[in-house]
Amino acid sequence: MSAPAETVTVASPADFHVHLRQGEMAEVVTKHVRHGGFSLAYVMACPLPALLLPPLGWLIAADAAAIDPGVEYLMTLYLCPELTPDEIRKAAGAGIAGVKSYPRGVTTNSEGGIESYEAYYGIFEAMEEVGMVLNLHGEVPSAAGTNTCVLNAEPAFLPHLRALHGRFPRLRIVLEHATTRAAVECVKSLGETVGCTITAHHLALTVDDWAGQAWHFCKPVAKYPDDRAALREVVSEGHPRFFLGSDSAPHPYESKAVAFPTQSCAAGVYTSPILLPLVAQMLDSFGALDRLEGFVSTHGRAFYKRPVTQGDSAVVLRRGVSKPVGIEGYGSGATHVVPFWAGKELNWEIVRE
Amino acid sequence: MSAPAETVTVASPADFHVHLRQGEMAEVVTKHVRHGGFSLAYVMACPLPALLLPPLGWLIAADAAAIDPGVEYLMTLYLCPELTPDEIRKAAGAGIAGVKSYPRGVTTNSEGGIESYEAYYGIFEAMEEVGMVLNLHGEVPSAAGTNTCVLNAEPAFLPHLRALHGRFPRLRIVLEHATTRAAVECVKSLGETVGCTITAHHLALTVDDWAGQAWHFCKPVAKYPDDRAALREVVSEGHPRFFLGSDSAPHPYESKAVAFPTQSCAAGVYTSPILLPLVAQMLDSFGALDRLEGFVSTHGRAFYKRPVTQGDSAVVLRRGVSKPVGIEGYGSGATHVVPFWAGKELNWEIVRE
Repeated sequence: MSAPAETVTVASPADFHVHLRQGEMAEVVTKHVRHGGFSLAYVMACPLPALLLPPLGWLIAADAAAIDPGVEYLMTLYLCPELTPDEIRKAAGAGIAGVKSYPRGVTTNSEGGIESYEAYYGIFEAMEEVGMVLNLHGEVPSAAGTNTCVLNAEPAFLPHLRALHGRFPRLRIVLEHATTRAAVECVKSLGETVGCTITAHHLALTVDDWAGQAWHFCKPVAKYPDDRAALREVVSEGHPRFFLGSDSAPHPYESKAVAFPTQSCAAGVYTSPILLPLVAQMLDSFGALDRLEGFVSTHGRAFYKRPVTQGDSAVVLRRGVSKPVGIEGYGSGATHVVPFWAGKELNWEIVRE
Repeated sequence: MSAPAETVTVASPADFHVHLRQGEMAEVVTKHVRHGGFSLAYVMACPLPALLLPPLGWLIAADAAAIDPGVEYLMTLYLCPELTPDEIRKAAGAGIAGVKSYPRGVTTNSEGGIESYEAYYGIFEAMEEVGMVLNLHGEVPSAAGTNTCVLNAEPAFLPHLRALHGRFPRLRIVLEHATTRAAVECVKSLGETVGCTITAHHLALTVDDWAGQAWHFCKPVAKYPDDRAALREVVSEGHPRFFLGSDSAPHPYESKAVAFPTQSCAAGVYTSPILLPLVAQMLDSFGALDRLEGFVSTHGRAFYKRPVTQGDSAVVLRRGVSKPVGIEGYGSGATHVVPFWAGKELNWEIVRE
């Protein structure tokens, strides 16, 4: 890979945090993983109370593989009281790569999330033993009494990350979608078993961008300019334990656009269809294009022990004429999804044969 | 006034920060000042570039007085380079009460706002001389390089307030719609000529409430729980230099509800139609009902030298059965306005003869 240049080649891009769907929405969005330049999708379990258990992982994976078998799907479980160490061992044997933890109430449908990690120590021991990864949504619930809100929910979570890593030093843990300088510094200070994903949109946004702008609203929310600077710095530095996890989450237009006084818009930003060009443009904008392959492929693949192999294909990106991302989006009705960056321009594109 | 009680009587409530409109929207919203329990409206000049000059003040006042002559309207000018000390003296003679300053670019249409106050020292001297009040929108523009965003724009403004007060100690200055503990502490630390308005919605909201909720989005944005606590504390304390200025701003449904990816929703919360019951409910909720009359009437009237007189009427509020605020709102089409608290319940109401 050479940079800065008119074209850049990336070996087998891997997105280590993707939300896929079932049914009609799956038909619309699954193919966007590859369209966006990626050949591996680490599929996060959804915090849907009625659908917590392992079968959902297989169902989504089966749906996705049926729609686009050209992508490798890594599946996760949802950390909940129904999980047992035996289930973990079985799941590992069946190829499940990780377990996702959502603290209670911090994002959509996470009322069933965890309140304390101690109850799960047996699970973590089993995960450590079989080499499964723990994926942490690193926010604590808001609480007025402790001055906790969406702005400081991530820093307030970091002591839990430190404690878990201290107690399970061999357990691979990923702090997902970091948004603050505090999180970046915390992960850097921890051992080789702690990784961290960064989304494309958090490299672009600050709080000013989602204030009054539903399409830029997600959890964790984008923070201060200095927090965004910290994300950009650690990517520019090429730190091997920081890598892309887009947290791309498709929500229908109707659940994003209209926030009536009695309801809030859905939290989530959908980047899959434009992901690799968007990341290239971001890194290019802050002079880190030479870190692209590490950030979107080799760092995450090394952490997850899914290295690029000879059979993997490379993606070529070209910097050229700026083109707008269509505001019309994809699908229709309940599957109508408008992506991030709609109406704005991208000056990177994937060279397609 | 007795409290806690089933009824509370407030002498001549005064809202020291209201946004009225012209034309059809004026027909819908002007009457809400009195409907919401208020007999004095301090009407803020709008930062509309094409309509900056003194005549707009008179036009809005004339429209409002024609629609509802039962309210006293105090008018303001918009601080801009076209103003001269002579204009200030003429305006004071014509009954204009204050001058509103918007820093450049911090809220809707404020591109023409001020960048530095030094150019206006001559204006401030004239205002001090004639007894006009300076109303400050106390935020600095966002700037990534200095880590300034909507969350810390108000604290970053406070040195300007201190400097202005130091230079013009006899000039009455109001820091409008304070949202942070830093602002409350700053105003408390300054002299008797510095007042501060607090909105009803900032007594209710934190950042979590406007994250993904367009109807709760305004400038300045609601901040951390501890900031809201500071606002509640200074109201509970009954500090005489802190009083209600609702910043009630009607925006059409269509400019609030849909934030397409290419646009943001309008910044503003509309509380006028339910203002006095809402404020009573807020103060009741944190045990400060005995401060209601001071907060919504006597403190602000004393600061503005508009004391309650014998001819003024009192408003009686009753605590009773909870009733929902209708989500249908008022008006239609381009004048369709949905108020704050729509879909939620109020358990205070104005006793109407």
